[in-house]
Amino acid sequence: MSETQTQINYIDWPKEIKKIMFVIVMEHEANDLISLINLKRDETTLNNPFLEGYTCEYNNKQVILVKPPIDPVYKVQSVSTEPASLCVYAAIKKYNPDIVISAGTSGGVKRKENPDLHLKIKDIVVAQSIQFFTRTIIIKDWEGYVAGKQYNLLNPKPLHQILALKPVIIGTDNSFTNDNTHAIEQGIDCIEMEAAAELRVCHLLNVPFTAIKIISDVEMDDPTERETLFKDFFVHGIKNLSIKLKEFLDDIDKIANW
Amino acid sequence: MSETQTQINYIDWPKEIKKIMFVIVMEHEANDLISLINLKRDETTLNNPFLEGYTCEYNNKQVILVKPPIDPVYKVQSVSTEPASLCVYAAIKKYNPDIVISAGTSGGVKRKENPDLHLKIKDIVVAQSIQFFTRTIIIKDWEGYVAGKQYNLLNPKPLHQILALKPVIIGTDNSFTNDNTHAIEQGIDCIEMEAAAELRVCHLLNVPFTAIKIISDVEMDDPTERETLFKDFFVHGIKNLSIKLKEFLDDIDKIANW
Repeated sequence: MSETQTQINYIDWPKEIKKIMFVIVMEHEANDLISLINLKRDETTLNNPFLEGYTCEYNNKQVILVKPPIDPVYKVQSVSTEPASLCVYAAIKKYNPDIVISAGTSGGVKRKENPDLHLKIKDIVVAQSIQFFTRTIIIKDWEGYVAGKQYNLLNPKPLHQILALKPVIIGTDNSFTNDNTHAIEQGIDCIEMEAAAELRVCHLLNVPFTAIKIISDVEMDDPTERETLFKDFFVHGIKNLSIKLKEFLDDIDKIANW
Repeated sequence: MSETQTQINYIDWPKEIKKIMFVIVMEHEANDLISLINLKRDETTLNNPFLEGYTCEYNNKQVILVKPPIDPVYKVQSVSTEPASLCVYAAIKKYNPDIVISAGTSGGVKRKENPDLHLKIKDIVVAQSIQFFTRTIIIKDWEGYVAGKQYNLLNPKPLHQILALKPVIIGTDNSFTNDNTHAIEQGIDCIEMEAAAELRVCHLLNVPFTAIKIISDVEMDDPTERETLFKDFFVHGIKNLSIKLKEFLDDIDKIANW
């Protein structure tokens, strides 16, 4: 892969942000924010198989939360990259937001190479880069494309400095496993299932994009302790994400003008 | 995975088909059909980052060919599932076709379990099922969803009987490798990079869908012979796909009323 293909393109935050769109795939992640800032279901998205929208006014800004609806065949929440791509595309066409933030949970990867990062459960992080990390291709021309890390990403520094979010390298995959081999090989800090796909859509539609994720669990020597902490996180920890997203909204003008 | 989650749902061909849409991702696959039936670039899709459309009238039917445009960052053809999902979604919204056919090349898998199939280079096949075949998930509820083979698929029998297409099990993956281990484990006959994603979009938008693919190469004992045949296919073999797609258009009323 050439250097040009791996370079990350940070873009500046728009100076004036009036419409903020969150993409949150999982219901339990979305529901906290919906109650916290009183988002209301947008009835024009009822029965749309790709887009479930919620909107509200908050501090004189329009806030939009979108998620892909429940899959009608399998009756599960529509995790993974294709539903996320379609949801973000349909949502941008409908709401025309100034920025898009992918929010949700993410698994933390324990890597010897990043001992300073020390990711812990409940840490809240911001994307310093996003890529697919398990895709491979035998044709050289497509190598950069299948990783897809070169699309425009909002500069993570304002969120690091103003909201104390840890900048991390996010890896997206359509599998959810306990095996972190590929992630470690690729230098990935956290793993989730949508961000790289959403990033491409936002780049192609010229909408500034970042991802804010909360760490749901980190690989541990004791799998029983890990399981206990993971379950506890979903009861007591996950609300910290929506609290931080509310802080983000409170500080949005400061962030935009950082 | 429960039996309900793995069942394939064949739907009947619509009795009257007036608008036929082909999705062809690769340029060299699309160009043959474009010249053969004289498709014209739809100028309203110029500069659309997700949709490049071509249309024509053929035998009193409207024929539409769509492809995802070249990726503007990596300057490569936009293979893989997310661009395909977005292209099909945008194209269905725009053209409202009666059926969608995913067409293109596919690698053949040599499996001991299907000696009767005998896939060879230039064979033209029709989907008897389509699924993602390398995705895994540690949560039982999502197992069927990540494979995604249960979305509505057009009954392959008319294309088998009228056009002599071989019915095959198609596997979709976002990686392109020489390693067929997963495909063999999952009982996959041919491998490509878009169909399972396109199938889901069509199911959710209630548009009948199938895939017609031409075999570009099959695993062989002699890798040099394989490489030679593969190269020869792209010079002399690939046009057979567009010839068969034209036959499909010629026979469409017979197929619909099979």
